[in-house]
Amino acid sequence: MGSRIGDELKARALWFTAPRTAEFRRETVPPPGPGEVRVETIASAVSAGTEMLVYRGEVPQDLRLDLPTLVGNYAFPIKYGYAAAGHVLDTGSGVDHLSPGDPVFVHHPHQDVFLVPARTAVRLPDDLDPELGVFAANLETALNVVHDTPLRLGETALIFGQGVVGLLVALLLKLAGAGQVLVVDPLEERRRLALAAGADEACGPGELNERITEITDGRGVDVAIEASGSGAALQGAIDAVATEGTVVVASWYGTKPVTLALGGHFHRGRVRLSSSQVGRSNPELAPRWGRDRRMHTVLGLLGRLNLRKLISHRIPFEEAPEAYLLLDERPGEVLQVIFTYEALRGGQDV
Amino acid sequence: MGSRIGDELKARALWFTAPRTAEFRRETVPPPGPGEVRVETIASAVSAGTEMLVYRGEVPQDLRLDLPTLVGNYAFPIKYGYAAAGHVLDTGSGVDHLSPGDPVFVHHPHQDVFLVPARTAVRLPDDLDPELGVFAANLETALNVVHDTPLRLGETALIFGQGVVGLLVALLLKLAGAGQVLVVDPLEERRRLALAAGADEACGPGELNERITEITDGRGVDVAIEASGSGAALQGAIDAVATEGTVVVASWYGTKPVTLALGGHFHRGRVRLSSSQVGRSNPELAPRWGRDRRMHTVLGLLGRLNLRKLISHRIPFEEAPEAYLLLDERPGEVLQVIFTYEALRGGQDV
Amino acid sequence: MGSRIGDELKARALWFTAPRTAEFRRETVPPPGPGEVRVETIASAVSAGTEMLVYRGEVPQDLRLDLPTLVGNYAFPIKYGYAAAGHVLDTGSGVDHLSPGDPVFVHHPHQDVFLVPARTAVRLPDDLDPELGVFAANLETALNVVHDTPLRLGETALIFGQGVVGLLVALLLKLAGAGQVLVVDPLEERRRLALAAGADEACGPGELNERITEITDGRGVDVAIEASGSGAALQGAIDAVATEGTVVVASWYGTKPVTLALGGHFHRGRVRLSSSQVGRSNPELAPRWGRDRRMHTVLGLLGRLNLRKLISHRIPFEEAPEAYLLLDERPGEVLQVIFTYEALRGGQDV
Amino acid sequence: MGSRIGDELKARALWFTAPRTAEFRRETVPPPGPGEVRVETIASAVSAGTEMLVYRGEVPQDLRLDLPTLVGNYAFPIKYGYAAAGHVLDTGSGVDHLSPGDPVFVHHPHQDVFLVPARTAVRLPDDLDPELGVFAANLETALNVVHDTPLRLGETALIFGQGVVGLLVALLLKLAGAGQVLVVDPLEERRRLALAAGADEACGPGELNERITEITDGRGVDVAIEASGSGAALQGAIDAVATEGTVVVASWYGTKPVTLALGGHFHRGRVRLSSSQVGRSNPELAPRWGRDRRMHTVLGLLGRLNLRKLISHRIPFEEAPEAYLLLDERPGEVLQVIFTYEALRGGQDV
Repeated sequence: MGSRIGDELKARALWFTAPRTAEFRRETVPPPGPGEVRVETIASAVSAGTEMLVYRGEVPQDLRLDLPTLVGNYAFPIKYGYAAAGHVLDTGSGVDHLSPGDPVFVHHPHQDVFLVPARTAVRLPDDLDPELGVFAANLETALNVVHDTPLRLGETALIFGQGVVGLLVALLLKLAGAGQVLVVDPLEERRRLALAAGADEACGPGELNERITEITDGRGVDVAIEASGSGAALQGAIDAVATEGTVVVASWYGTKPVTLALGGHFHRGRVRLSSSQVGRSNPELAPRWGRDRRMHTVLGLLGRLNLRKLISHRIPFEEAPEAYLLLDERPGEVLQVIFTYEALRGGQDV
Repeated sequence: MGSRIGDELKARALWFTAPRTAEFRRETVPPPGPGEVRVETIASAVSAGTEMLVYRGEVPQDLRLDLPTLVGNYAFPIKYGYAAAGHVLDTGSGVDHLSPGDPVFVHHPHQDVFLVPARTAVRLPDDLDPELGVFAANLETALNVVHDTPLRLGETALIFGQGVVGLLVALLLKLAGAGQVLVVDPLEERRRLALAAGADEACGPGELNERITEITDGRGVDVAIEASGSGAALQGAIDAVATEGTVVVASWYGTKPVTLALGGHFHRGRVRLSSSQVGRSNPELAPRWGRDRRMHTVLGLLGRLNLRKLISHRIPFEEAPEAYLLLDERPGEVLQVIFTYEALRGGQDV
Repeated sequence: MGSRIGDELKARALWFTAPRTAEFRRETVPPPGPGEVRVETIASAVSAGTEMLVYRGEVPQDLRLDLPTLVGNYAFPIKYGYAAAGHVLDTGSGVDHLSPGDPVFVHHPHQDVFLVPARTAVRLPDDLDPELGVFAANLETALNVVHDTPLRLGETALIFGQGVVGLLVALLLKLAGAGQVLVVDPLEERRRLALAAGADEACGPGELNERITEITDGRGVDVAIEASGSGAALQGAIDAVATEGTVVVASWYGTKPVTLALGGHFHRGRVRLSSSQVGRSNPELAPRWGRDRRMHTVLGLLGRLNLRKLISHRIPFEEAPEAYLLLDERPGEVLQVIFTYEALRGGQDV
Repeated sequence: MGSRIGDELKARALWFTAPRTAEFRRETVPPPGPGEVRVETIASAVSAGTEMLVYRGEVPQDLRLDLPTLVGNYAFPIKYGYAAAGHVLDTGSGVDHLSPGDPVFVHHPHQDVFLVPARTAVRLPDDLDPELGVFAANLETALNVVHDTPLRLGETALIFGQGVVGLLVALLLKLAGAGQVLVVDPLEERRRLALAAGADEACGPGELNERITEITDGRGVDVAIEASGSGAALQGAIDAVATEGTVVVASWYGTKPVTLALGGHFHRGRVRLSSSQVGRSNPELAPRWGRDRRMHTVLGLLGRLNLRKLISHRIPFEEAPEAYLLLDERPGEVLQVIFTYEALRGGQDV
């Protein structure tokens, strides 16, 4: 192994420097040291949920960063992003499981070339379009949500919000044995896509009550997943589940307060609410599931789902700062946005 | 067996006829028919939580009545109350397990004499002061809350609100193996009483964070019970539990909205929230626990706890209408209020 | 509605009159009274597990009968069997949901025409070959097993015994999100069939340890289902699961003792063992699942699985007594045996 | 800190050198290095269960040793034992939390003076008779069993076997809210002691069924703990629990096979069986409970239970080899046997 390229490389990283302000900063990426790899990015995914909260400055400023690749803080500036797919450029000594050219996924901010500990780079399957590797992050989140959801074969699941995570959760719950997967989203285009991808039913918020009554014969759904980031949807989820049903909150509301009516069905129906956050897994699974097994399972799922359909926009990395303005103003038009990177270095010099 | 009294009896019942308006209505109570008993009330308990919501008209008007002894509806007028202790006056044919003079508890509104199916009258233990039977209702609620709370031996429990239910929950959690029971209430008198009754620690809301940190070494409490009816307390409960900790909501908020910040510890700490309502029990216990077993267990607990201390006011039933005005204005001064009834019929005109 | 046929019908029922002795007995089936239906059988299924224990007299003689249609007792004679599909012949007054000619499933012994309360006859879907309705009983058992099994998306399941119930459990666990379904059976034909029907891996008992190590990287399977009725298989299941893994016992061992080594992996691996019996469901599901919902879910699954392949023998009902001799001697050659019935009465005479 | 004694010390350790053969071996204990402490033993406890299996050679010979202080292997010779209380003699550099003279508990074989990493020595409370520290090991096991037992307030618990662990489990289940704790043991003396220590009921195996029926009104106990090491008791536990009840196996059966009848109540009653082994804790508690918290809780419990009564024999360490012969032959006469050590070095020849 060892470095094949040797020299420092110039890199470009995207930073949020103030609320609603994205700009590039240059950095120099040294050759990989022992146990490190350098990665050239092919694609990185923009998260419509958390990432846009960060971009807008709606995250508590003193929240600690929960990935080692993030830099700065939520009071700005911050280098953010957590889903990059690329190829290994070169490897440091002691790196046995990766070679130059290998396709990898890394939880890393948007940046065209970067250096990370080799153990944080996940080898993607050879038969997978490496660009689809960017879905590994959201699919890991979705799998964790499903592992936190007490769904049994033949039960009815309701998912609020058909952004990328909500849609992936819907697909995984179907794989996990849901008899009926009903999704709700105010945007018709998203409902259409969810149905095409495998949901059984889709409706807008206005029709929801009627549909639930029809589908469940008035009983309510067995589990509801809130993945829209809207407090109103959380109320809808609470009211939609059957007696002793469970609501799993997969959204992060940032600093937005959520106002709930808990005196009705929540009370009489003995509803359960739990937060699913990807940093930890269901403790009941812990003796048998670690991070590696979870990611390994995700890699197997990447090839089973029709993920390409979920990419609504491919934007050259150079245009990223302007892209955020658009994403912020017209969230309804996008599903998965990815930044694409020119492969300047692929094999040549750099 | 059989009726010993035979005649109709004149009775007086308390009705809420409009928001914040209580008044007496007369009714005639016929002799017991087959399977029925007539009961002369000794004492009935006023619930500071739900009952005062009903009194103030803060309950959704179309909520269904959940006890067969309630009459009217939440849009007024309504005959309300659910904790009466008394003696059996006479019994109809086919009633084998009760005899005249037996002390009983009934989920019944405030009324000096009433007729109910014999199966709804719970025989109180002979060695119990029958007046304390009024606690059976709240103790049943508290036991149900404890059965819904995943506490393990040596864990730390935090209870918000030291009204009667909150206080009973604190005592039962101690019996259930809590290593530390910490209670929080803004009223010093209630904190004093809780400590006297068996809580390990008591504090006001302002000192709470510091105390939790001390007691749990920064980990957070294992379970928190919200029994205060305050949305701010629910937020406090969410923020007080450890990672993967559980909040059990024992309060009924009526129509009051509750505003929560769910973007912080709720999210990262994967907090679980569940509603405990006395109408149903923990499904995991259902194969072995029915209503009868729950009530039988309550009867055993009535004698083990020092309940007399929880009675802050004994008010003659005649003064009930005025008493509600007081309760409404100065909730902080009362713990358990009971109405006492003159034993007009006891042995004399019977 | 009401009866269209009116007259008594002569019927033939199969009885076990002594260990390993099956014979026909005649009975007269009166016209349906109020709320009753008369059913003409198309097919009935022989259960290779419990039914053969009954036939051999290996059931505790004082065990109570757990279906209202069974007659006699386990000390013989006994009219046994619990999976009959047929058509409604005629209906008594007050029967609104069934009409003559409707395909139905009934938990009933082997008998060509019988009378039952209409609520016990389950209407089969119109687009289903009614003969396949006989699988409703075993599929209900299999669904109950799956509801008792704590499998999560992507986990590995191992099923011992690929008789009908074991095979159905394997198929349902795949639908329920198993990443890998491994089955083990000493009979090659059954392994072949399981793979054809959807299992991911199949092996004989001798290769099991090696395969588990390969598939799970030495971790052990997440859940194991014992559906073979063999004590050795139960030991195998205990040793096959990962630390804190679960073994679900779907077999009924009758009076056979089971000898286990519990000092090894059971102890150190903190293994959990639970019995799944179809008479009751997972209590956690009880607030939302009743018998009707379970059967309704089964009806939906009947059409999704390729059940026809599981029928290894179709035997005319007339030959039933001899058939049991064969089943008893050569259990390895059969999977699902069904008795077929001539439609003597279909609209014509009777 | 640092060593105050400096010299090597002669020590005597007990070894099992062949089945049923205990003898002393000498060793030299060097002064503590960095992060180490030297401990002078006051008392060590003999475990009547596991330790006697080891002594008799009834443990699988290739089982790995699960404590770092054990030496040898189960094929003999082996230095065994896991519950020693003593005083710190001297400490190496970098040891801040312990000082010479401090009372400590260590999971260590029977030996009069020994050297261990300081982090493995648990500081005992100052107000505790340090001899009682030997119970820390079994109390940790018992607490783990209780954490693995799904008991709720007011439920009935049955414990098979009133050796030390069984008795401690009974006491802790009482603290954990059991309404009734029933214990069963064939030895009258043990039943007497259990009642004195706090069990509600005690009986011999012959009266068990009748007592359970009385106490539970025929329902069966909610949880049963098998702590006797007898296969017959495990069968008794399975048959004693209510429908959907749980049996926790706290015994280690070594290589003894256990023969069970699983075709009766196990099957119909959907009984759950799980193994509780002290090496791991209930995964549901894992996010909040580590080893340190468990031991800290044990230290708090040491002072709350009347443990002195459980010591049936105090034997000078010098007589240990002969003592094992007795323990092996007359297990019924002993409860907790401890070896006592002369404090030769306490400040004098050191």
